[in-house]
Amino acid sequence: MTDLNLDRSAAPKPFRRLLLTGAAGNLGQQLRGALAAWADIVRVTDIAPLGEVAAHEEASTVDLADEAAVHALLEGVDAVIHLGGISVEAPFEALLEANIRGLYHLYSAAQKQGVKRIVYASSNHAVGFHPVTDVVDIDAPPRPDSLYGVTKCFGESLSRYYFDRFGLETVCLRIGSSFEQPKNPRMLVTYLSYRDFIELVRCSLFTNRVGHAIVYGVSDNRTKWVDNTKAAFLGFRPQDSSVEFEHLFPVTAPTTDLDDPTQRFQGGPFVLAGPMEPKR
Amino acid sequence: MTDLNLDRSAAPKPFRRLLLTGAAGNLGQQLRGALAAWADIVRVTDIAPLGEVAAHEEASTVDLADEAAVHALLEGVDAVIHLGGISVEAPFEALLEANIRGLYHLYSAAQKQGVKRIVYASSNHAVGFHPVTDVVDIDAPPRPDSLYGVTKCFGESLSRYYFDRFGLETVCLRIGSSFEQPKNPRMLVTYLSYRDFIELVRCSLFTNRVGHAIVYGVSDNRTKWVDNTKAAFLGFRPQDSSVEFEHLFPVTAPTTDLDDPTQRFQGGPFVLAGPMEPKR
Amino acid sequence: MTDLNLDRSAAPKPFRRLLLTGAAGNLGQQLRGALAAWADIVRVTDIAPLGEVAAHEEASTVDLADEAAVHALLEGVDAVIHLGGISVEAPFEALLEANIRGLYHLYSAAQKQGVKRIVYASSNHAVGFHPVTDVVDIDAPPRPDSLYGVTKCFGESLSRYYFDRFGLETVCLRIGSSFEQPKNPRMLVTYLSYRDFIELVRCSLFTNRVGHAIVYGVSDNRTKWVDNTKAAFLGFRPQDSSVEFEHLFPVTAPTTDLDDPTQRFQGGPFVLAGPMEPKR
Amino acid sequence: MTDLNLDRSAAPKPFRRLLLTGAAGNLGQQLRGALAAWADIVRVTDIAPLGEVAAHEEASTVDLADEAAVHALLEGVDAVIHLGGISVEAPFEALLEANIRGLYHLYSAAQKQGVKRIVYASSNHAVGFHPVTDVVDIDAPPRPDSLYGVTKCFGESLSRYYFDRFGLETVCLRIGSSFEQPKNPRMLVTYLSYRDFIELVRCSLFTNRVGHAIVYGVSDNRTKWVDNTKAAFLGFRPQDSSVEFEHLFPVTAPTTDLDDPTQRFQGGPFVLAGPMEPKR
Amino acid sequence: MTDLNLDRSAAPKPFRRLLLTGAAGNLGQQLRGALAAWADIVRVTDIAPLGEVAAHEEASTVDLADEAAVHALLEGVDAVIHLGGISVEAPFEALLEANIRGLYHLYSAAQKQGVKRIVYASSNHAVGFHPVTDVVDIDAPPRPDSLYGVTKCFGESLSRYYFDRFGLETVCLRIGSSFEQPKNPRMLVTYLSYRDFIELVRCSLFTNRVGHAIVYGVSDNRTKWVDNTKAAFLGFRPQDSSVEFEHLFPVTAPTTDLDDPTQRFQGGPFVLAGPMEPKR
Amino acid sequence: MTDLNLDRSAAPKPFRRLLLTGAAGNLGQQLRGALAAWADIVRVTDIAPLGEVAAHEEASTVDLADEAAVHALLEGVDAVIHLGGISVEAPFEALLEANIRGLYHLYSAAQKQGVKRIVYASSNHAVGFHPVTDVVDIDAPPRPDSLYGVTKCFGESLSRYYFDRFGLETVCLRIGSSFEQPKNPRMLVTYLSYRDFIELVRCSLFTNRVGHAIVYGVSDNRTKWVDNTKAAFLGFRPQDSSVEFEHLFPVTAPTTDLDDPTQRFQGGPFVLAGPMEPKR
Repeated sequence: MTDLNLDRSAAPKPFRRLLLTGAAGNLGQQLRGALAAWADIVRVTDIAPLGEVAAHEEASTVDLADEAAVHALLEGVDAVIHLGGISVEAPFEALLEANIRGLYHLYSAAQKQGVKRIVYASSNHAVGFHPVTDVVDIDAPPRPDSLYGVTKCFGESLSRYYFDRFGLETVCLRIGSSFEQPKNPRMLVTYLSYRDFIELVRCSLFTNRVGHAIVYGVSDNRTKWVDNTKAAFLGFRPQDSSVEFEHLFPVTAPTTDLDDPTQRFQGGPFVLAGPMEPKR
Repeated sequence: MTDLNLDRSAAPKPFRRLLLTGAAGNLGQQLRGALAAWADIVRVTDIAPLGEVAAHEEASTVDLADEAAVHALLEGVDAVIHLGGISVEAPFEALLEANIRGLYHLYSAAQKQGVKRIVYASSNHAVGFHPVTDVVDIDAPPRPDSLYGVTKCFGESLSRYYFDRFGLETVCLRIGSSFEQPKNPRMLVTYLSYRDFIELVRCSLFTNRVGHAIVYGVSDNRTKWVDNTKAAFLGFRPQDSSVEFEHLFPVTAPTTDLDDPTQRFQGGPFVLAGPMEPKR
Repeated sequence: MTDLNLDRSAAPKPFRRLLLTGAAGNLGQQLRGALAAWADIVRVTDIAPLGEVAAHEEASTVDLADEAAVHALLEGVDAVIHLGGISVEAPFEALLEANIRGLYHLYSAAQKQGVKRIVYASSNHAVGFHPVTDVVDIDAPPRPDSLYGVTKCFGESLSRYYFDRFGLETVCLRIGSSFEQPKNPRMLVTYLSYRDFIELVRCSLFTNRVGHAIVYGVSDNRTKWVDNTKAAFLGFRPQDSSVEFEHLFPVTAPTTDLDDPTQRFQGGPFVLAGPMEPKR
Repeated sequence: MTDLNLDRSAAPKPFRRLLLTGAAGNLGQQLRGALAAWADIVRVTDIAPLGEVAAHEEASTVDLADEAAVHALLEGVDAVIHLGGISVEAPFEALLEANIRGLYHLYSAAQKQGVKRIVYASSNHAVGFHPVTDVVDIDAPPRPDSLYGVTKCFGESLSRYYFDRFGLETVCLRIGSSFEQPKNPRMLVTYLSYRDFIELVRCSLFTNRVGHAIVYGVSDNRTKWVDNTKAAFLGFRPQDSSVEFEHLFPVTAPTTDLDDPTQRFQGGPFVLAGPMEPKR
Repeated sequence: MTDLNLDRSAAPKPFRRLLLTGAAGNLGQQLRGALAAWADIVRVTDIAPLGEVAAHEEASTVDLADEAAVHALLEGVDAVIHLGGISVEAPFEALLEANIRGLYHLYSAAQKQGVKRIVYASSNHAVGFHPVTDVVDIDAPPRPDSLYGVTKCFGESLSRYYFDRFGLETVCLRIGSSFEQPKNPRMLVTYLSYRDFIELVRCSLFTNRVGHAIVYGVSDNRTKWVDNTKAAFLGFRPQDSSVEFEHLFPVTAPTTDLDDPTQRFQGGPFVLAGPMEPKR
Repeated sequence: MTDLNLDRSAAPKPFRRLLLTGAAGNLGQQLRGALAAWADIVRVTDIAPLGEVAAHEEASTVDLADEAAVHALLEGVDAVIHLGGISVEAPFEALLEANIRGLYHLYSAAQKQGVKRIVYASSNHAVGFHPVTDVVDIDAPPRPDSLYGVTKCFGESLSRYYFDRFGLETVCLRIGSSFEQPKNPRMLVTYLSYRDFIELVRCSLFTNRVGHAIVYGVSDNRTKWVDNTKAAFLGFRPQDSSVEFEHLFPVTAPTTDLDDPTQRFQGGPFVLAGPMEPKR
């Protein structure tokens, strides 16, 4: 399913230039290899050091809060994979800069530069206050579990507006827990393998029309809290499962503290993490 | 799944006589082999030449617009697989004769002759004006994408009436693109292999009770625009997928013409095909 | 609510020319008076004699089955109120001519002549096989109760296609029983007063955008089988009720024949009326 | 999937003490082997002889109609798998004792003894009057097909109350037909293999939070009348299918008696089985 | 609306004989006057003294737990208004006798005696564990707030079964608080005036077909927790409102104890009332 | 309905202290009179001059962007009516300060100060990109029509989070057009009279429990784009209608420019208003 139908030697690549933000992060690094096959040029950016830069990569260090820099960054870009910004709970001011103001700069610049599509790393924390005894589909109402989650709802609203207003397409990936392996029992449910993550980005970039789409980024784990049926037009079929990691977390009787919100809600520890005070 | 549980040598076949209309067409020819195992006699009909007629077949050339001939055709028939009529966009008068008047003759005759069930080749063009960013289930409202699609909606309404009024059961197959292989990228989504088509007809004939059912005829392709969950009582489980044909259509960046209706709607080129003028 | 905000003496009327088909019929006659205030010219047509023709009226006798005549009829028309065709169960061939072929001519001509909107007299018989113990909204699946009802489903599909394909707007009025007064107990539920009928047409003509809309045409009767909530954008608020006619039908114990389909289904006697044989 | 992640030699088992009612029955016997790995002590009870009692088992013969005995039975129990009571149509008085009064005793005692969770053997006969042409999900309205089915609805209501009132969790298993193999064509649809049954109980016991859950107990059979999508948080993925038994029931034409309720409704023969008169 | 269309002097009354259970209770007494106009004979029954018996009334004192007596009671009855049984929280054994065993006797006898319809006093306590911030319609899942509420769910299931099995129709009235006037602020929401109660019974008896229906019995109060849209086929239009009683409960700031279940759930004090121990 | 049940002379008022933000604005001024009856002290605030301050009012001029000032502002407050911030399309930086950062300050302070409830002026522009041919209920997905609308979605998400996390209740009022009278034809649909606005705030403050609620603020206008059925627990029953203003906008034929987004979408001119550039 993931064998890309690309003749790497000869034919032109599907995209001329892709932009990857958050390229120095965990998922950004996973993706950089795959992007080589999809675009002649991959512009990579982060506020952290980007490591070794490949021949087909253009590296730039840009703070999304810097409006002018962001507009320059988007020049000549066909499509964006936006993994940048803060991806954990943080003090409001930090989230405001990175995930609200920064995101507005990105969309404003993308629209002005004629970018066609953005793949936006939203999060299951946009709906983390749904209980673990529900299965939410992509139309479930927002239930952010943290200020971080609230900013992801903001991103979903903002991108919806840019699609309805300007036709700029976005796929919002409500990514679960994408690591080498699950780190706790909850992640057996939210696990997204790196391979499935890359496939999800591939579907989001190459599906002909996506409009403004929302899709949950989880592998084919045994237990599911989410339902992607209505996003089937994206063609995302996860190949991996957390089943192989279940041995890491020995079977135990269920927790008996029925009131512990970190056990009751899909967001897990996030539901108690915020609001955080800034470090002074 | 498709190994029919039939002892071909000895036991009586499930049906005494089946009628297959459109037997000279592409799908009709695919089906004729399978029908031998399901009925002692298969009455085959078309307005085109029927080719070689097997020992168990009764061939007749009938124009569905000929009411008396259709009534004779239905005599002694247990169940019908109706693939006849026009299956592409055409001038209204032609569609009217074949898909409206002809279909009425078929149902009128079937009811009078005591036929129990009709498997009716409807089409995904009955809902082709749903956008490609939606996943439609079998309750989605009609959105025909052509005059042809309008006649398929007519067939679904007419057969509903005959079920509610007389108990004459129908399964409406909203067939996608059933060819040897997909002919364009859109057909990667709508592809129905011949094997899956035959299985779908088998489920439609042998499920004990079907009432008036609607089901999408697509293989288990990677990308889905349709959802058969509510038709699961038919037991249709496609075995094939268009994945093996994806290499025929090299990956490219999505089209950038956001307004092209043939890209925006599930019906593809049909959405612009009609209404056609008659050839003079 | 129905006081039209029109200065009848001076200002130009909202429409230049309206076309009313079926103008000789019961409802057509009710409407002709109201139309004078809405358009400079009202083109009235029927296959029956049109009676006295007013100064602002253009009368013409056209058979909808006559394609060329229909195209001429639509010339210079801004919007159509289509009450023509057959409005009861009838032999299929008659329905085919009037309600299928004739309707196609109307839409084909309207589209070519640049007509902006059609108000189409559909019928509750398009959904008459829903049981009387259900309340159907405008998204309820079609359940025609007669061949006549099947042709009304055809009209709803055809008009949907013309909207999706060409932007030609239609409001489908699923008219109940519009007479001076209810004629039997069932009509206490389906009654639409003439005043409410006229108001419904007014809303359908003057609402700024209607897309392709479906609305039930019933007065504010005590018992309801239908729910217009999702059509509230049309602004139709019935002012009358069948309550004043309840005295005509003395209270009795419910019928005890549970299997009588004319009592079980919303369509009443229609559910057994067809299919009719042509008179020879 | 069913390889339990248990180090059987050393570590403490997840539960200290489980109670299994109906332990002498068909399903009870299937389950006793599996329970050894899940609890230090398994208290087994029935009104019938329990057969050989294993070292980790505590056997007791209790009539659920005996309130005091039930309270004693629940002492020291962490969780219950309740298979006891009557599982076929029976005279009302018998059902009343076993499935209503007995069940109340069980819940009353469980709540007082601090039991955390009950896995309750409900039945597809709680919804057996849904037609075989529908696919019901876990929110489908109750449609019991027998007095037995009515008592299963009672159990689902009672357990819902105990959850809402006291937080005592229940998983209601709407078990289909769990036997060595299907005994008739209907059971090809309702079949639940023993292995899948045990897995379903395992999911019901070890999912961290279940609230008050309903789930259908069927294997991954070709034809489906039920849809567990909204119960996906339980992680139940059946591994077996009735496909391997389809050869037992040769393909035949569908029944032609459209009015036979045992063919029209999911409950099959149950829909005519009751109400039974007591034997005198 | 409530002026019955009855010529009291001459014509035969709609019903020959109606049975009213719970005739000595509050609502039973309200109803007895109205019933005179609807039936030649009204059989009234209760376990409490029935007071003065009118000429058209047949009085009998029957314990519903006495099966033979109930069968005799139903002889010659056309339809039943069942207000009998316990209508508050009570020890389980008492509820079991009156609301479960007694109700079964009633339905069993009614079916055998050919009764056509039962109007069953269910209760909003069948759904009382829905929060006060939800509006529940008649398809909302059962959420009983007490053992009493559980028995009302039982009655709804049992009557559903008798309809699906035998065609015996039932209207389940989920009655709110029907008193002279609201007794506390919650009853401003749940209030059902006596006049509206009688009208609701009238609609339930005289609507031609009701199948198995559920309807909320509340007046047109300002605040609503329930939605009868899908029961509009019953024609119930409340005429009264609790607005006139709002002055009895002075406006105050909302309660600040967010965890008080009697304030959080629609059932009010019922949600904490049970399970009750029997008085010894 | 709006006669407050308050003995103004004697009894203590329901609230000790209410905070009204945006008190100098159009709606703020409308509300100040009513608040006198509901609280001993009304703290009024704005960045604009507050005009004459009544005896029961505490006036303060606070910029919501000033975190410390906002925390002081919330001290001793029981409940808040938040009309402050920007209520039209504006450059992003201005909206960010007032409607995002300012709102966070308000919620953060309210939670720390123990405020129980906030009535939040959201807007129909949070869903303004729904077409005028749809009727949206309170669960409709967000479709902001402007950057302003995006900030209203942010407010709805943020307040949802504070309710799920801390139990701080909010009613989000999606206010339409609240002026003396409608200013254009669109406002005939979105009109909210001042009297109805005050009643809506009253319901939002005095309903015992509201959780996190969303409700549309429109009068009982003839045409409706919104449906408050699911918010009926708030008891809001508008008394006014724009019908009396229909004469201001003479009836005309519908616009014929089908592509004009200001006519196609509920948001009207807002859908083209943004994004705005800051004035320099």
